[in-house]
Amino acid sequence: MGNIRLVIAYDGADFHGWQRQPHAPTIQEALETAIAKITGAPVKLYGSGRTDAGVHAAGQVANFKTACPIPCASLVKALNDMLPAAIRVKRAEEADAAFHARYSAASKTYRYRILQSAICPPYLARYVYHHPYPLNCLRMAKAARRLEGEHDFTSFAAAGPADEGGKRKQKGGNVRRVFRSRIAVRKDLSLVVYEVRGSGFLHHMVRNIVGTLLEVGSGKLRPEDMAAVLEARDRSQAGATAPACGLCLVRVEY
Amino acid sequence: MGNIRLVIAYDGADFHGWQRQPHAPTIQEALETAIAKITGAPVKLYGSGRTDAGVHAAGQVANFKTACPIPCASLVKALNDMLPAAIRVKRAEEADAAFHARYSAASKTYRYRILQSAICPPYLARYVYHHPYPLNCLRMAKAARRLEGEHDFTSFAAAGPADEGGKRKQKGGNVRRVFRSRIAVRKDLSLVVYEVRGSGFLHHMVRNIVGTLLEVGSGKLRPEDMAAVLEARDRSQAGATAPACGLCLVRVEY
Repeated sequence: MGNIRLVIAYDGADFHGWQRQPHAPTIQEALETAIAKITGAPVKLYGSGRTDAGVHAAGQVANFKTACPIPCASLVKALNDMLPAAIRVKRAEEADAAFHARYSAASKTYRYRILQSAICPPYLARYVYHHPYPLNCLRMAKAARRLEGEHDFTSFAAAGPADEGGKRKQKGGNVRRVFRSRIAVRKDLSLVVYEVRGSGFLHHMVRNIVGTLLEVGSGKLRPEDMAAVLEARDRSQAGATAPACGLCLVRVEY
Repeated sequence: MGNIRLVIAYDGADFHGWQRQPHAPTIQEALETAIAKITGAPVKLYGSGRTDAGVHAAGQVANFKTACPIPCASLVKALNDMLPAAIRVKRAEEADAAFHARYSAASKTYRYRILQSAICPPYLARYVYHHPYPLNCLRMAKAARRLEGEHDFTSFAAAGPADEGGKRKQKGGNVRRVFRSRIAVRKDLSLVVYEVRGSGFLHHMVRNIVGTLLEVGSGKLRPEDMAAVLEARDRSQAGATAPACGLCLVRVEY
């Protein structure tokens, strides 16, 4: 019985997120269907976390158990032949029996791209948040760095289930460690890029952080207000949830 | 009565080409509908040429006549607010009364992108032709340059209407001047890029040229065979029509 680990990229624009659900195309469903056809048996695929509808991935990780002896290289080829072009399996490899894409994850890196140009080129429209309004990126960068460290991120958590895995909120359960939280500006591309690496993320956490950074960039909040927003442990103190299309799960570290 | 010239970019993946047709979304229809709503009158939009289903544009040009006095900058904004994100109006400007996007065009530049990497990233899948097989690009480059000059391109013309504008084939009517026909290799991106600028193009001409260059790249034809393919004036002597998704109308020169 092999435990196969997949690294997956997808364009989430036309999917209702990662998690299988009735009556709507999802990434998990497309992958499980393709794997089952190739291995000849129903399969349960465990992702490192759910991504929401419209969110992309460059390096999502998932694993499944199978009795099928197909070599990993052949599996990658067979899966990509069967999957829609919007989902690609980049790698497959045998993992330890104990490996679990979600529970074994040490950290994840997300990237959020904000396009500042007056007009958004069609080929970027699915992959950036088009926001052609003045932003003070220096202030946004300062605010972003203030989130590094271990904090209770309740102010940035969606209502409802608390984390990407769908676990219910618990008292004190919204503490996460953010290793790196940075704004980079690509003036040549009119892009403002937020990249964050953390031990784990609450549901909507990255998009709520970006919404708050946009309020700092537009002058509604000051960088030093981030501490108070964190301390409030109150969703209403943070900014709006930024649109899904700008977000990409870059990689999962183990 | 103003004559307005538009420069338009689009992602053609979800459209049935430029030309209006019943029961299928097209670029022309989307633009005419939006213009009519803004100017308050039905409108006929003249494109520099038709692009086929799935073909993209970075700089398509079109013009229309209107009695509406809306300033061009406001027109751009209003159109982009109304159009789907896959279609963007990059510029609008008052043109001479005699300007006609198709008949005034001096030349056009098309680009075709072939992706050579083993796996095509989802974010590129709509915009390149994924062809992960060995190609001799030096031979392709030599073959491409042999098309420069004035030639009868019948061997590269689709069956049916002869040119992009839908004009019927005429004896001797398939002569076009190609100013530049080049292959460039972007090794860092695993891309082979064909760029061609010509006085005009027959229907499917660029895609048929690319299909033929692929036969040269794979060794089925030699670069020096291009002369014989041209001389044959016979579609069956050239390669298959390369897929639409790799093609982009880069600009129209006047």
